[in-house]
Amino acid sequence: MSATISALQEARADYQPRLPLALRDANAGIELGAPTEPATDRDALKKLFPKTYGQPQAKIVQGKGGLSTAPLKVGVVLSGGQAPGGHNVIAGLFDALKAANADSRLYGFLKGPGGVIEGKYTELTAEFLEPFRNTGGFDMIMSGRDKIEKPAELAACQRNLAELALDGLIVIGGDDSNTNAAVLAEYLKAEGSPTCVIGVPKTIDGDMKNEQIEASFGFDTAAKTYSELIGSICRDATSAVKHWHFVKLMGRAASHIALECALQTHPNLTLVSEEIEANSASLQEIVDGIVDIVLQRAAAGRNYGVLLVPEGLVEFIPEFRKLIDELGTVLGDEEEYLLGLPDHSERFQYLMTRLTAESARLYGFLPESIQEVLLKRDSHDNLLVSQIETERLLMDLVSDKIRALNAHYEAKGEGEIRFNCLGHFFGYEGRCAFPSNFDADYCYSLGHAAAQLVRGKLTGYTANVQNLTKPADEWLAGGTPVTMMLNLERRKGAPKPVIRKALVDLNGRPFQMFAAQRDAWALNDDYVFPGAIQYFGPAEVCDAPTITLALEQRVGG
Amino acid sequence: MSATISALQEARADYQPRLPLALRDANAGIELGAPTEPATDRDALKKLFPKTYGQPQAKIVQGKGGLSTAPLKVGVVLSGGQAPGGHNVIAGLFDALKAANADSRLYGFLKGPGGVIEGKYTELTAEFLEPFRNTGGFDMIMSGRDKIEKPAELAACQRNLAELALDGLIVIGGDDSNTNAAVLAEYLKAEGSPTCVIGVPKTIDGDMKNEQIEASFGFDTAAKTYSELIGSICRDATSAVKHWHFVKLMGRAASHIALECALQTHPNLTLVSEEIEANSASLQEIVDGIVDIVLQRAAAGRNYGVLLVPEGLVEFIPEFRKLIDELGTVLGDEEEYLLGLPDHSERFQYLMTRLTAESARLYGFLPESIQEVLLKRDSHDNLLVSQIETERLLMDLVSDKIRALNAHYEAKGEGEIRFNCLGHFFGYEGRCAFPSNFDADYCYSLGHAAAQLVRGKLTGYTANVQNLTKPADEWLAGGTPVTMMLNLERRKGAPKPVIRKALVDLNGRPFQMFAAQRDAWALNDDYVFPGAIQYFGPAEVCDAPTITLALEQRVGG
Repeated sequence: MSATISALQEARADYQPRLPLALRDANAGIELGAPTEPATDRDALKKLFPKTYGQPQAKIVQGKGGLSTAPLKVGVVLSGGQAPGGHNVIAGLFDALKAANADSRLYGFLKGPGGVIEGKYTELTAEFLEPFRNTGGFDMIMSGRDKIEKPAELAACQRNLAELALDGLIVIGGDDSNTNAAVLAEYLKAEGSPTCVIGVPKTIDGDMKNEQIEASFGFDTAAKTYSELIGSICRDATSAVKHWHFVKLMGRAASHIALECALQTHPNLTLVSEEIEANSASLQEIVDGIVDIVLQRAAAGRNYGVLLVPEGLVEFIPEFRKLIDELGTVLGDEEEYLLGLPDHSERFQYLMTRLTAESARLYGFLPESIQEVLLKRDSHDNLLVSQIETERLLMDLVSDKIRALNAHYEAKGEGEIRFNCLGHFFGYEGRCAFPSNFDADYCYSLGHAAAQLVRGKLTGYTANVQNLTKPADEWLAGGTPVTMMLNLERRKGAPKPVIRKALVDLNGRPFQMFAAQRDAWALNDDYVFPGAIQYFGPAEVCDAPTITLALEQRVGG
Repeated sequence: MSATISALQEARADYQPRLPLALRDANAGIELGAPTEPATDRDALKKLFPKTYGQPQAKIVQGKGGLSTAPLKVGVVLSGGQAPGGHNVIAGLFDALKAANADSRLYGFLKGPGGVIEGKYTELTAEFLEPFRNTGGFDMIMSGRDKIEKPAELAACQRNLAELALDGLIVIGGDDSNTNAAVLAEYLKAEGSPTCVIGVPKTIDGDMKNEQIEASFGFDTAAKTYSELIGSICRDATSAVKHWHFVKLMGRAASHIALECALQTHPNLTLVSEEIEANSASLQEIVDGIVDIVLQRAAAGRNYGVLLVPEGLVEFIPEFRKLIDELGTVLGDEEEYLLGLPDHSERFQYLMTRLTAESARLYGFLPESIQEVLLKRDSHDNLLVSQIETERLLMDLVSDKIRALNAHYEAKGEGEIRFNCLGHFFGYEGRCAFPSNFDADYCYSLGHAAAQLVRGKLTGYTANVQNLTKPADEWLAGGTPVTMMLNLERRKGAPKPVIRKALVDLNGRPFQMFAAQRDAWALNDDYVFPGAIQYFGPAEVCDAPTITLALEQRVGG
């Protein structure tokens, strides 16, 4: 820990997160519903999860009693990218365990799931935990991206969990990590291990949600942090009246962050990957669409604007995916020859003979620097698509097109379009922010819920807290069997059980609300300036949920 | 204006900025001190400013009376880059004018000084102004970077000011804009125009300050916004434990922002341009210094860290300036031949024959992309040094050196240093943030002070508000004659009166405080997480001045 703490951190240390009634009740119990089933692939999943398939929904209810009051030993691990509120999950878990029995103990596995495999942990005492309450980041026990999948890894975990005699392991992570928790739960149950495994839904991307899991934690704070910055950039655009800002946002697999930020700030243009895929839009069409808005605004004297783009965009463009496939094949067959060619121009010429006409045209349309990026592969032979700086790709292509138009206008003696653009990428700025009141409360509640599920000896569940647009008192807590969220997807050629990622639903209220307003936002300056996240002010400033969540739950709009 | 406003904006609309006692007194007056003189170039400046040279300091004092109560007509213009609080200067100006006489009128010139030259303005009524109170940005009347310098421009301004029969013009801007205000004040006085010109010290860079001007407005909010983001990135670094973050910050001419952010967040490394210049450090030495810290941290198992660099760094490196000079000469003499060479390698070979050995070595040390950037010039024949992405330059050079070291370690059979770095640039994110309580109060007070100076018929002054680390009640307000802040500097070969930029004082308390602690910050994780700017919480969270200001005024530390 740092020797110095900020005034905000000191003030936030006193914040007491709000809990639903059922999680404040010392005599709460667990009510089980009817057995559950996944939406698809039932037989296959039943075979993969014989011990944990079909478990019932679990609700934590006031007054029911029956939860263990024995001293428990529980481990917790943070998996994957940081999300604001992770420390509060751990604090909630700790407080709930201690409230049930002061002799219970909590252990934190270090640096992610690898810490469980290697048996690296630290005991989380009240004193250790105290300075992390209501803070951002995962620095309490750090995080990592290892997975617990291979037989030797599962066995190592079992040994380490047994050595500590853990009653439960809480895995805080996204869709993959919760799937991983289910695999480990199944394995341990089959092996007769007494350790329950409970997942907690975390990801700033907001793509782990369904009927049961209303939101993944961290999305609220991260989207609001980005919206703060985007709002300030909108204000800069309309103050300096001379820049287009192209803002890339996190969200590789889904565009929830971009959509929420658009609803918060009303930028002129927001690209939603899911819509682009649904429309089979080409890169050229996307660029033409942007240029069209740039020209319309310029005609109205507005040589400035703000565009949002999710980082995963290119992978949603069908022709781009085809190009990636073809390049992968060429590199697989002829990488040595191709990369042995003396310069870019020869590599380019050679590729033109190897790609289909459509892919050759798209490849030729890309800036040279990106053409070169696409000839590199990682150690798993995957192309480094994620290294494409999407916002810069669009800036380059839009600038090229406007330059060409200007040459045309000049030839006709007409005035040129002024177009200056600046790129931004917001991602790391929001992953470790102090959790908003919402995330602080939600995470603390999730931690409590996870503790109660372990006290109820459930395994293979993801903790849930529902009714999130109501006051915290009225929130409902429980657990969702992970198997009911699974489906089989092909990963590297083999079927794999995974939690289906929640993409932006083009028929859902958040997207529909955006779609109904975007034409006005494009041409006018309807910018909204959310400002920095507030923790102490009026409730409407400090405690509002995301617009996405409010619309999904039919509040407001 | 946007149809939608955020909850924060709505709540902030009710904020009543605090004013010093003298600015709340309806019977305040102006007390003039002894004549003043600039520190240097007195004779030359006296010749350039015969009408306004040597004016006395002005203090606004309670109860003295004597200020005009006639209805006044005043214009205001925003000049240069956005800074949080500009709208509050205008609100303060408006309220003070109206308080003195409800028939006074305020006009806003549009899109910067160009609006004064072209006579483009709008009347700022109470209704127009209302939604902008306590908001960020300059979108109320927009800004621009034109200067009022040439005789025809000065004459055009005089005509436009006379047409509106303005008693005063308030120029809100940085050092150049305040110099410009003095030039216009002198011109108008010499021409017998009745319009007074008053400057207001604005710049997020914090480089317009002296004994009289304790701070430029916007620095507080901008530095705190960047510190919010840097703190979150520090937390990300110590959570993910695998990235070095290289963060570039605004500050071309001075490193105040980087220094303040360092004091706020305790990153592992902060480059201060002024120190690098004082030490005549070479780029190689800077890179070696960074690599040294990277290695020391790696040896302690810390393969992560955070580095801050001001955007203006390279221009403070003496050998770099020499290289720029030499490249400028080569391009001046042989641009056509050089750029006509077929490729980079031939241009490079040719340059090696034209540069001195020292410059050739430095040029060869740079990544190819930056070698090419340095062969481009703008329409004024200046090299595009500002297009160098300083953080990426350092990332490239540090990565190169670590790759070379790893090859060496590998040959010796030793483990390699893991070094993954990510770049960030924070600038536009902070220029239009909602002003902090400090900037909201300070700006509102500056606006009031400017109004009183016009009521006192003073011209060629910069409004000041002092005693800024005390409660607002105790702040002192007045005006500083611009001529006393001037000196002559050579610009494009000719002597030019300019306000001396305040660079980071290496003997000053802020730098000394940083220097005393940085070794500990380098190797430990002493990160501090300031979090988002708060407007409604406890005073110690919401109202603290910058650490720079507190140390300069010997408060705390």
